[in-house]
Amino acid sequence: MSQLDFTIERLDLPTHPSPLKFSHEQGDFQANFVTDSQRVIYRADVDLEGTAAPPQACELLEVAGPRAQIAFAAEEVAAGIVTCGGLCPGLNDVIRAIVLALWHRYAIRRISGFRYGFRGLLKEFNLEPLSLTPEVVRSIHHRGGTLLGSSRGHGDRSAAMVDRLEEEKINMLFVIGGDGTQKGALALFEALKRRSRAAVVIGIPKTIDNDLSFVQRSFGFETSVSLAAEAVAGAHVEASGAIDGVGIVKVMGRQSGFIAAQTTLANNDVNFCLIPEVPFALKGDNGLCHHLEERLQSRGHAVILLAEGAGQPLLDALERTDASGNKKLADIGLYVKAEIASHFAQRQQEVNIKYIDPSYLIRSAPANANDSVYCARLGTNAVHAAMTGRTGMLVSLIHDRFVHVPMKMAVAERNVINPDGSLWRDVLDATGQPPLMTN
Amino acid sequence: MSQLDFTIERLDLPTHPSPLKFSHEQGDFQANFVTDSQRVIYRADVDLEGTAAPPQACELLEVAGPRAQIAFAAEEVAAGIVTCGGLCPGLNDVIRAIVLALWHRYAIRRISGFRYGFRGLLKEFNLEPLSLTPEVVRSIHHRGGTLLGSSRGHGDRSAAMVDRLEEEKINMLFVIGGDGTQKGALALFEALKRRSRAAVVIGIPKTIDNDLSFVQRSFGFETSVSLAAEAVAGAHVEASGAIDGVGIVKVMGRQSGFIAAQTTLANNDVNFCLIPEVPFALKGDNGLCHHLEERLQSRGHAVILLAEGAGQPLLDALERTDASGNKKLADIGLYVKAEIASHFAQRQQEVNIKYIDPSYLIRSAPANANDSVYCARLGTNAVHAAMTGRTGMLVSLIHDRFVHVPMKMAVAERNVINPDGSLWRDVLDATGQPPLMTN
Amino acid sequence: MSQLDFTIERLDLPTHPSPLKFSHEQGDFQANFVTDSQRVIYRADVDLEGTAAPPQACELLEVAGPRAQIAFAAEEVAAGIVTCGGLCPGLNDVIRAIVLALWHRYAIRRISGFRYGFRGLLKEFNLEPLSLTPEVVRSIHHRGGTLLGSSRGHGDRSAAMVDRLEEEKINMLFVIGGDGTQKGALALFEALKRRSRAAVVIGIPKTIDNDLSFVQRSFGFETSVSLAAEAVAGAHVEASGAIDGVGIVKVMGRQSGFIAAQTTLANNDVNFCLIPEVPFALKGDNGLCHHLEERLQSRGHAVILLAEGAGQPLLDALERTDASGNKKLADIGLYVKAEIASHFAQRQQEVNIKYIDPSYLIRSAPANANDSVYCARLGTNAVHAAMTGRTGMLVSLIHDRFVHVPMKMAVAERNVINPDGSLWRDVLDATGQPPLMTN
Amino acid sequence: MSQLDFTIERLDLPTHPSPLKFSHEQGDFQANFVTDSQRVIYRADVDLEGTAAPPQACELLEVAGPRAQIAFAAEEVAAGIVTCGGLCPGLNDVIRAIVLALWHRYAIRRISGFRYGFRGLLKEFNLEPLSLTPEVVRSIHHRGGTLLGSSRGHGDRSAAMVDRLEEEKINMLFVIGGDGTQKGALALFEALKRRSRAAVVIGIPKTIDNDLSFVQRSFGFETSVSLAAEAVAGAHVEASGAIDGVGIVKVMGRQSGFIAAQTTLANNDVNFCLIPEVPFALKGDNGLCHHLEERLQSRGHAVILLAEGAGQPLLDALERTDASGNKKLADIGLYVKAEIASHFAQRQQEVNIKYIDPSYLIRSAPANANDSVYCARLGTNAVHAAMTGRTGMLVSLIHDRFVHVPMKMAVAERNVINPDGSLWRDVLDATGQPPLMTN
Repeated sequence: MSQLDFTIERLDLPTHPSPLKFSHEQGDFQANFVTDSQRVIYRADVDLEGTAAPPQACELLEVAGPRAQIAFAAEEVAAGIVTCGGLCPGLNDVIRAIVLALWHRYAIRRISGFRYGFRGLLKEFNLEPLSLTPEVVRSIHHRGGTLLGSSRGHGDRSAAMVDRLEEEKINMLFVIGGDGTQKGALALFEALKRRSRAAVVIGIPKTIDNDLSFVQRSFGFETSVSLAAEAVAGAHVEASGAIDGVGIVKVMGRQSGFIAAQTTLANNDVNFCLIPEVPFALKGDNGLCHHLEERLQSRGHAVILLAEGAGQPLLDALERTDASGNKKLADIGLYVKAEIASHFAQRQQEVNIKYIDPSYLIRSAPANANDSVYCARLGTNAVHAAMTGRTGMLVSLIHDRFVHVPMKMAVAERNVINPDGSLWRDVLDATGQPPLMTN
Repeated sequence: MSQLDFTIERLDLPTHPSPLKFSHEQGDFQANFVTDSQRVIYRADVDLEGTAAPPQACELLEVAGPRAQIAFAAEEVAAGIVTCGGLCPGLNDVIRAIVLALWHRYAIRRISGFRYGFRGLLKEFNLEPLSLTPEVVRSIHHRGGTLLGSSRGHGDRSAAMVDRLEEEKINMLFVIGGDGTQKGALALFEALKRRSRAAVVIGIPKTIDNDLSFVQRSFGFETSVSLAAEAVAGAHVEASGAIDGVGIVKVMGRQSGFIAAQTTLANNDVNFCLIPEVPFALKGDNGLCHHLEERLQSRGHAVILLAEGAGQPLLDALERTDASGNKKLADIGLYVKAEIASHFAQRQQEVNIKYIDPSYLIRSAPANANDSVYCARLGTNAVHAAMTGRTGMLVSLIHDRFVHVPMKMAVAERNVINPDGSLWRDVLDATGQPPLMTN
Repeated sequence: MSQLDFTIERLDLPTHPSPLKFSHEQGDFQANFVTDSQRVIYRADVDLEGTAAPPQACELLEVAGPRAQIAFAAEEVAAGIVTCGGLCPGLNDVIRAIVLALWHRYAIRRISGFRYGFRGLLKEFNLEPLSLTPEVVRSIHHRGGTLLGSSRGHGDRSAAMVDRLEEEKINMLFVIGGDGTQKGALALFEALKRRSRAAVVIGIPKTIDNDLSFVQRSFGFETSVSLAAEAVAGAHVEASGAIDGVGIVKVMGRQSGFIAAQTTLANNDVNFCLIPEVPFALKGDNGLCHHLEERLQSRGHAVILLAEGAGQPLLDALERTDASGNKKLADIGLYVKAEIASHFAQRQQEVNIKYIDPSYLIRSAPANANDSVYCARLGTNAVHAAMTGRTGMLVSLIHDRFVHVPMKMAVAERNVINPDGSLWRDVLDATGQPPLMTN
Repeated sequence: MSQLDFTIERLDLPTHPSPLKFSHEQGDFQANFVTDSQRVIYRADVDLEGTAAPPQACELLEVAGPRAQIAFAAEEVAAGIVTCGGLCPGLNDVIRAIVLALWHRYAIRRISGFRYGFRGLLKEFNLEPLSLTPEVVRSIHHRGGTLLGSSRGHGDRSAAMVDRLEEEKINMLFVIGGDGTQKGALALFEALKRRSRAAVVIGIPKTIDNDLSFVQRSFGFETSVSLAAEAVAGAHVEASGAIDGVGIVKVMGRQSGFIAAQTTLANNDVNFCLIPEVPFALKGDNGLCHHLEERLQSRGHAVILLAEGAGQPLLDALERTDASGNKKLADIGLYVKAEIASHFAQRQQEVNIKYIDPSYLIRSAPANANDSVYCARLGTNAVHAAMTGRTGMLVSLIHDRFVHVPMKMAVAERNVINPDGSLWRDVLDATGQPPLMTN
């Protein structure tokens, strides 16, 4: 993470005073406009044994919020919104906040909701956009999912998508999605720039796995953890209600185990937490099955929580050794379940495995209160940024402050759990599992 | 906030290796001990138009977590826990985390829970402490409130309390409480120092109002907001179900309106949010009653959310003008309700007011998943700090990192909403209320 | 309850086959129409020491449901819906079910929602009805309250209301409301009959207090109990967290204490349950205050749950003795609170009273799953009854069967808790309170 | 159901006055004892075109509740409790109610909780019973599952179990379980009778599927429906968020589809409800796949809710045709999912199937308020019955009254949905699915 450059691009457009009624004065009990010189330090960690040079300007994050001068007049704007990738609690909250801020704050009346992700931006799929008004979005935040529908892929079709945007005369696009989606949004932004279009692209980072860089936490993450914690509580009840019961819960997390780790801390029912960042063995004296055996002997039941991306090397190895052409087992949860069953069957020991996969129930839930607040503020700040002509950027939260992050920084690397750090340490503390289960 | 000094005091005791099994190496997939040179920058805001000098060492916050060297041997420690002040979601989670960390991580077996706040530390009340074990605290986090009971006051009785601690041979005290309580804990710490006792006092900041300085958010705050949001939703249903219905909800917040502000953002049902930090008038052309009248004319119903400390100048004025000796109206919610009723009665206009005070229901709720995680980590880090001989400090969260804050800094000033800042701005945006309702 | 007559009135109209696709055959795996000869026994209790004569036909309740022959053609019908009285969980579910059944089952397109109770039926208030379609009601059941608004009173204005119905050409009116409302609906039904109008009036019984006769349980009751139980849990946490803490919770129930009794059984936290059906004294050796004192001495905290109509004789007596013209204390909860405080103050004993009134939060909640099912089936059966020309009746649930009950029977007496019966017995068992606290 | 005989057996023991403080008088505001002549009519349905003979005495159900005369003295009793079969919300509530009633009402101090179902009653498994006291069970109702653990089977080992009961000197056994369990309990009761043991066996009917005869609804059923409804809501969000999305939810219900049917009525999101009682085809013009195709064409998404026992003939047929020895597909949900996928793949049409199986999450949940009340009253009435020497019977709820049902009646046949009746009719109405999908 040595080369940081948080410089935000902006369309070269004349500006005019914002219609918003904020103050320029401190101490008058009225909220103020944000100025362009307000920044937040990104690197807040210091080691006294190292050097503490003042951060360079390019390493400071621009503060989000309404500016006194804006670049678009209400009647010029035709805005579009698109939601991409898997479902995540809070999508409708973000859509709603964008529509309400555009309509009520900036008097913008042309707002299109493109259907089913980037597919809705591709002419060949023939998907009519929804016309979005305050009335349409009024109570959508009480429902999970996305009013607009979603789909995966098509992020590499920037040329065709820009054609469609031009056709629909959209000059302000809000793209809600994760890593892959923001790469697509970045390509869109670059294609628009190449064509010298006065259109902005603003991303709102969505990743239920919490694995986007430069985002303190992603929206929907807390809601997901609270629901995953309920699934773990259920697994614990099932496991402890049966003789030698083992509850296995699989949660989201392809590249990073944030949901699994946070859920482990939410209730002390998890005995083994398995995440993509930390390898583990199933067999051998230091393998999961052996430690599980010991746990059952001493306590009579156990709960295993795993992220879907955990143990990928085990699945890869499996594929390599399986030359007969049989299909690779794609699901680590079912694989771990099968291996545990066979381990105990070989030893002729009883084991009662209860396997729970709550993923769809988590993804489709409405956001809880805290995520709702977060989504509302993300959406509102996205609109403020767009109105100033900023583009090629995401709105984000860092150190509890809303900031602007260039898309090209955000997609450069993923956020993962640091196995050396405090979160994983607290997980090991909470589970009492061996620090590393490898042979 | 010009003079920061985050230096943490520590008992002058010989140290020995920690029993914890953390690593000293990076990249070995095992969590590491924290070193004493790890710091976090507190002042993360920079204005490019100002100067960005590197922060001085004393302005950096010490990172919390387990150290490789500790100052207490397990058999030497007799720990005490006390909970003070009003109830708050998460108290039992913190108690439980402290007990589990002391017992399972550091093998400490003498843990006393003092009953009913500082009163339990005063001999004259004759309250026997509870003996705390993992079995006793196992499922207390599913219940609201505090296993130990609580009470207000007595923070000025440090000498008597130190006598009791000595009698009970307690050399590690965890004090869970708010501003007043931490002042009491600071006095305890200083009294112990004067007597040269090798005993540590660690605070865990508790304030449902979120009004403690140097604490990013206080535990229980998110749970409170989610419950307050339900009360507001109920008020909205009541208001919109009646002719000219007005729902009034009063929430906690004596000095600061964080719960009211955050709740306003959680659902867009609030039309007027009243907080202690921003004055307002009831009467006159720019007063609340007049604006409420307009709202009812245009929409037929309205919701008012107020913090209990809002409008204090109105109550004070009331007292001053009331020379006849009648008792001052102490409750701003009931006062606002009465004033609105009389305003509309004078105009012979119908109004149906529904007044909701959910305070006890909020305070007494168990913590939600996110607050549970937070409490668990606060409690664990408090234990880690105590074991190193650190004292006179609070564990806290700043920029999403767990840190140590000297008690004397934390109690020096309160955390309030900045009326010039982004939170209040987003509240004004969400309600559409006038930026300032004063005449 | 000696004179039962469950005969249902019906308009004298020619009938024609129903458009519904139900079967007439048993055993073909397809649901059947209901026949007019299907009945349910109302008096299911028998004492072997008495006589068990077969019930007379007039004492049997008609089974609800779709008939093969109906009296209205789709294009003839103009339906109206009105909701009256206080809010109750499930109102929107009932509205929605009526609209969906009218529209989708019977192809009726003219459906008016009258606003704000009977007031919406009175011309002078000038309230335009809402036009109701499936789109309008699609997700209203996720919100508490009533889409139509509500108000109390005006039930005695049947002549004016019939004028309005004629003007609007409404010939099918669904009246959702409690005892007073159904008396108004009965008057409407009789006025229409006097004018020989071919219009039907069907009631859907709504009473959060569960105090309507010939209704097994009223919709919203279970939702109310589950929320009241949460309030009691909060009161218990508050009471046990304080020194000599007393939690007092007041719930709905003017004439009958069903919510209080059922809530007492839902968690064993209540020590004193006070209902309108059973008198109690505050003072004296067998009064509440004395028993509370004993409870605090032995256990240190107590929870009192009271219905708003409990102890009315105490309030009445208070009024009689208060000759100075001061206003009667109208609220039994606040009165009990004040009396307890004064009782302990006189004895110079500490007491910490926490008073919780969750009524608005309960009334305004959306229905839980079980109440939603019940509301949906009530609304659907109301439509089936109306389509056959039945009138002057309520749909109801008796012995878990949906039935028709004549309005004049339903309003003749109230449903109250029998102090000799099993519900009150189980409450006494659960609280351990004295069987009767009178002197 | 022609031969009813509700006669309850009773040990031939001398009786003595109950220690309970209930009254014998009507109208004294104090709850009364139940007398042995109180009965409830079981057959409440009458067809005016048939005959309405007065029910014979043997067809009347005995009313449950405390009697003035009991057969056991407190010091004679050693009680046992056992929970069998799958988990179900409310198990801990029932255990708790039994223990509290035995201890507080009848002063019984020897209460054993046998572990892991009937296995705990078999000596060879060497499972020590738990000693149950009010302290042990105080807050178990806040947790799902069963404190005692459970297991399936062993119901045919009555001789060995009676040996164990004699050894442990248990003379009062409470058996909580479903159809198979109650058959085991009946065998136990008969074995005890053969040995002339003065021991009683009382069943508490548990069946999450609601498929026990002579039980109005089984405990945990409402909790299950409310959680199943959330799963369906999630499936709906997932289905409508994707292009041609199909949500499939599988719920409990081997022999009867009550959970599926009731859940369908709880929210109108289900388009196809499949239950064991009504056959259906997958293929052909009137098969599920074809109707699903039409639904997707018109609406773009669909939700299918199926009971685990639905479509069993399809699976049986599959097995018959599969002569190659491949294992039978045991899971109708996965089978329907695969068949739909293959149907659309053949037609080269896009379909996005989301499959949700919430069974473990439902089974392991704590009971909601209404189920808690029900469980508490079931458990209390079970104790009242046992104290009178009644045996070989279940406590049950019929027509909202608690009654006694002989075990041999309850296990004689299962409760299923009548496809000709009102529940299935309302399901068809709510889904709009074809009345019968067979070719």
